[in-house]
Amino acid sequence: MTGIDDLPVRDELRGKSPYGAPQLDVPVRLNTNENPYPLPDALVERIVERVREAARNLNRYPDRDAVELRTELAKYLTKTGKYAVGLQNVWAANGSNEVIQQLLQTFGGPGRTAIGFEPSYSMHGLISRGTGTGWISGPRNEDFTIDRAASERAIAENRPDVVFITTPNNPTGNAVPAETVLALYEAAQAAKPSMVVVDEAYIEFSHGESLLPLLEGRPNLVVSRTMSKAFGAAGLRLGYLAAHPAVVDAVQLVRLPYHLSAVAQATALAALEHTDTLLKYVEQLKTERDRLVLELRAIGFDVTESDANFVQFGRFDGENGSHEAWQKILDRGVLVRDNGVPGWLRVSAGTPAENDAFLDAVRELKKEQSA
Amino acid sequence: MTGIDDLPVRDELRGKSPYGAPQLDVPVRLNTNENPYPLPDALVERIVERVREAARNLNRYPDRDAVELRTELAKYLTKTGKYAVGLQNVWAANGSNEVIQQLLQTFGGPGRTAIGFEPSYSMHGLISRGTGTGWISGPRNEDFTIDRAASERAIAENRPDVVFITTPNNPTGNAVPAETVLALYEAAQAAKPSMVVVDEAYIEFSHGESLLPLLEGRPNLVVSRTMSKAFGAAGLRLGYLAAHPAVVDAVQLVRLPYHLSAVAQATALAALEHTDTLLKYVEQLKTERDRLVLELRAIGFDVTESDANFVQFGRFDGENGSHEAWQKILDRGVLVRDNGVPGWLRVSAGTPAENDAFLDAVRELKKEQSA
Repeated sequence: MTGIDDLPVRDELRGKSPYGAPQLDVPVRLNTNENPYPLPDALVERIVERVREAARNLNRYPDRDAVELRTELAKYLTKTGKYAVGLQNVWAANGSNEVIQQLLQTFGGPGRTAIGFEPSYSMHGLISRGTGTGWISGPRNEDFTIDRAASERAIAENRPDVVFITTPNNPTGNAVPAETVLALYEAAQAAKPSMVVVDEAYIEFSHGESLLPLLEGRPNLVVSRTMSKAFGAAGLRLGYLAAHPAVVDAVQLVRLPYHLSAVAQATALAALEHTDTLLKYVEQLKTERDRLVLELRAIGFDVTESDANFVQFGRFDGENGSHEAWQKILDRGVLVRDNGVPGWLRVSAGTPAENDAFLDAVRELKKEQSA
Repeated sequence: MTGIDDLPVRDELRGKSPYGAPQLDVPVRLNTNENPYPLPDALVERIVERVREAARNLNRYPDRDAVELRTELAKYLTKTGKYAVGLQNVWAANGSNEVIQQLLQTFGGPGRTAIGFEPSYSMHGLISRGTGTGWISGPRNEDFTIDRAASERAIAENRPDVVFITTPNNPTGNAVPAETVLALYEAAQAAKPSMVVVDEAYIEFSHGESLLPLLEGRPNLVVSRTMSKAFGAAGLRLGYLAAHPAVVDAVQLVRLPYHLSAVAQATALAALEHTDTLLKYVEQLKTERDRLVLELRAIGFDVTESDANFVQFGRFDGENGSHEAWQKILDRGVLVRDNGVPGWLRVSAGTPAENDAFLDAVRELKKEQSA
């Protein structure tokens, strides 16, 4: 039987498995940082209206430059980010993964390198490799904050072309202070002209504020965002970035023409009309996230400070400690995420009932471990 | 003012412009091979129903493997392609451009090369470059058919990792005989194990049949397709491929996780329910395409044999002959495509009224030139 290794695939793909969390059918799914709140009915109907209109012209290619969508995204950023951006500052694609891929095709690629401070969003490394960009795994402190001095050293030594900073960081949850981002930006520019990508996928859940204002006077800085989390639209696959207009021009040299479908543009525009409602769900989730932190600590777990819609908790000793705990929580009907950080697991903030189910499961687990 | 060249973009991108036909607002647009027939109302309503359902779960990630969609695409191929394929043979992405990008990330990339026989679909070369794959421009006969001997030689000499064969070819319109594809497949395998991608974006418009049956016993062959043309769904951006299951497994190593949105999957599934209606429009377009060929010849133009929903016509002498003719046709309210093939232009088959408008415009142009 012919398998992958019988095909002329690239050498570095041999023996690899596709990325992705297990999609298991269990009662409580708190593993992929999805927003647990379905879109409100009024928004569903607005999506339907806009998609009906788009479907009537579906025989035509979509607006290649997604002008209306980018304009509305810019308004949202301006309203919530304390920094004014316009159409020319914003670019959108099929998920922030595609945004990151386009950035790496433009500023990374063969003969170039990118750095991230791990553990962090693992797609940064995977998409780097997928675009032929060399990947450098930078350090972190034991408490998962960024080790500024060590990171500056890593940048000075490796002179990467692209620097990823995830804030709030995934899977650990902690936000990165603006001073740290600025220091790493300076270190990166001192090493060589390079792009710094601040991945703010979870920023709406933060106790602090977006780093958008740092874009002022920094053409080599990019802030990436997504509608998957705060907008409750993981199924839509809509990621976007804000940056200097030259960056937006540059990614258009590598974007696949008409990459963003008319139905995706229509759906995203409908969601942007309901921003106020959606941000109320965000507030509920922040409350639940803070409750998870408190209760997990009360049960006796270590918890990383979280500015995201998820919480990293531990520690689970032993070589397979976190995976065994993951399985035991799953046996109780709750799916959390084992991100491969030794000793730690990640749980997404769900509805109050989902979080109660999770807390019950880990309470039992703790009892069992103490017994 | 900071521009692209002030950013640390890759050297090969400096001075480049984004790909894409001008999106001009003129009465008759026959420049991007769109299907001129809007989707029927019943299908629009079916899309709305399916999207409403998808929107209710939009807070969840979409089915990463698009199982239902791939199953229905496989049924469509089996029904129309005289060759049985199943879920395991089919993969789907955001437009055939993304399919091609995934194939090149898997089988091409840095240190590898791809060949196409030009003029052909220019994205093959552009996506090759975008993925770091070296691009080899293979030859064609003067009449735009594939020069089999010269192509075999080019393959033997260059030993490419990926071979693109577009049939019917874009922008010239002619189909490639199965024997030629087989000969090039053999030549490619003799040179080194390599993938042969048969791009059948326009196959539904052909006088002949799909080359799907060639997949039998050829794991290094891929047939790529799109819903943009025959399905009248350019705005949907849904491309797909059929191949050996190992190829489908392999592209999953490079695909961005959850690349295909829930709304795209829902919309495509709705369209697949209406295949019979949509294929009736295809028959109308084939009749119109054949009429364009006859009438253009009657007016005195040279016309390439067409198996697609467009027709290549000429010749326009002089260094800028085809561009000047393009402008004159545009001045008469009809937008056709200058694909950069010296002496030739391409017109998409529109509705009968659109085609009449086009024929009137080129009749006047011919008179002017003869005067």
